[in-house]
Amino acid sequence: MEKVKRYKHDSEVSYTLGMTITMELLINKPEIVQKVYLHSSIKDNQNVEKLKALCEKYKIEMVQSDKVFNILSDKGNCFVIGEFKKYNSQLNDANSHIVLVNPSDLGNIGNILRTATAFGFYDIAIIKPAGDAFDPKAVRASMGALFHTRVQYFDDIESYMKKFNKHNLYSFMLTASKPIYEVKFEEPYSLVFGNEAHGLPEVFANFSKTVIIPQTENVDSLNLTIASSIAMYVAKYSGCGIK
Amino acid sequence: MEKVKRYKHDSEVSYTLGMTITMELLINKPEIVQKVYLHSSIKDNQNVEKLKALCEKYKIEMVQSDKVFNILSDKGNCFVIGEFKKYNSQLNDANSHIVLVNPSDLGNIGNILRTATAFGFYDIAIIKPAGDAFDPKAVRASMGALFHTRVQYFDDIESYMKKFNKHNLYSFMLTASKPIYEVKFEEPYSLVFGNEAHGLPEVFANFSKTVIIPQTENVDSLNLTIASSIAMYVAKYSGCGIK
Repeated sequence: MEKVKRYKHDSEVSYTLGMTITMELLINKPEIVQKVYLHSSIKDNQNVEKLKALCEKYKIEMVQSDKVFNILSDKGNCFVIGEFKKYNSQLNDANSHIVLVNPSDLGNIGNILRTATAFGFYDIAIIKPAGDAFDPKAVRASMGALFHTRVQYFDDIESYMKKFNKHNLYSFMLTASKPIYEVKFEEPYSLVFGNEAHGLPEVFANFSKTVIIPQTENVDSLNLTIASSIAMYVAKYSGCGIK
Repeated sequence: MEKVKRYKHDSEVSYTLGMTITMELLINKPEIVQKVYLHSSIKDNQNVEKLKALCEKYKIEMVQSDKVFNILSDKGNCFVIGEFKKYNSQLNDANSHIVLVNPSDLGNIGNILRTATAFGFYDIAIIKPAGDAFDPKAVRASMGALFHTRVQYFDDIESYMKKFNKHNLYSFMLTASKPIYEVKFEEPYSLVFGNEAHGLPEVFANFSKTVIIPQTENVDSLNLTIASSIAMYVAKYSGCGIK
């Protein structure tokens, strides 16, 4: 058995830690799965049966090894780990996008993928420097949404804009004057969000429409996952419902 | 100096861990502050000056003690701690409310308080059993929003409804058929959310209007903070903007 190592950004493989997320991997991207590890203290149940059936169907090797869990998982309640080959994705030009500029927190990245998937946004651009969407922590926070979305990294916003020059950019900034409920999002659009601590640089006002989610003066700002979730909801459903 | 102990649910005092949140405490609720602790390695800067001025103004004792930080703070980057007396609040009958049924995660509770404050919801009912909004972890996640809101605990939903019998209850459930964008929220209303893992029991459909935030089948559910944030935004602004 080859050696399993703690995940690093330049690893060729990454891992799904836990049953639910490993099932998501096996169901949605069986072709990238290399191995499934089982802990010796896993108890047979319906999920384990399903897992075994999927591994058999796709001819994926199952390995029992507690050592792998010591290396890869900080938490005690993880009894299944999937190992998968990392892959590159290209965003779909015809779809609207979510653009995350320099997001750093892995939990945030995963959570945003989850909400994006919930609202039918399957194309996520991430502008570097940024956290790694393939890090097991981000994968876990995404609850498997990573396997439904195309995530593409860009060196800078210019590279993104050059490639998707028909997209209408809406940048969410606290200095914007236009409240989100007055914006008509013209497809295909890109919803652009800044880093957790700093938001977007002012220069984004020069090449995009700026938008604010109104809030009272009693908080500094909404957090990134909350702000982006509200924006995704509104962009998706603003034309719907009671008038 | 009396002994400082690790926070427990039945402690009479709680703590703000960090500069920003301690400033929020001093600015918004100086009357409940008992002490401010400074770490020996804190560096003098504008914030420290402001902090000292506020403590002087309100005659709050400042204590230098590194031991307190070892006891109360897990993180290394905390150099200021505020100690405050816990207090009871009564919800305002005239306002709309947020009702959290059995929330367990302290980070979620704090985050929801933060978003509620951002959208001008200052009355939060929490139905027991539930996490403790005064726990330093929740206080920190709230970014000080706790000091802007009234949080009141109830033994069960019946006690809450008995006390606020004019409120229109809207329960957010995955089994609901009415999408949120079709709901007209009639004031005063209560936006009701279930536990992170289980959501709301079906019985809530018997005594409230049920609402769903539409989502694709590719995720199990939105997480609690995301779902409640979107609901608060929509309830607050659904009448605003372009039609």
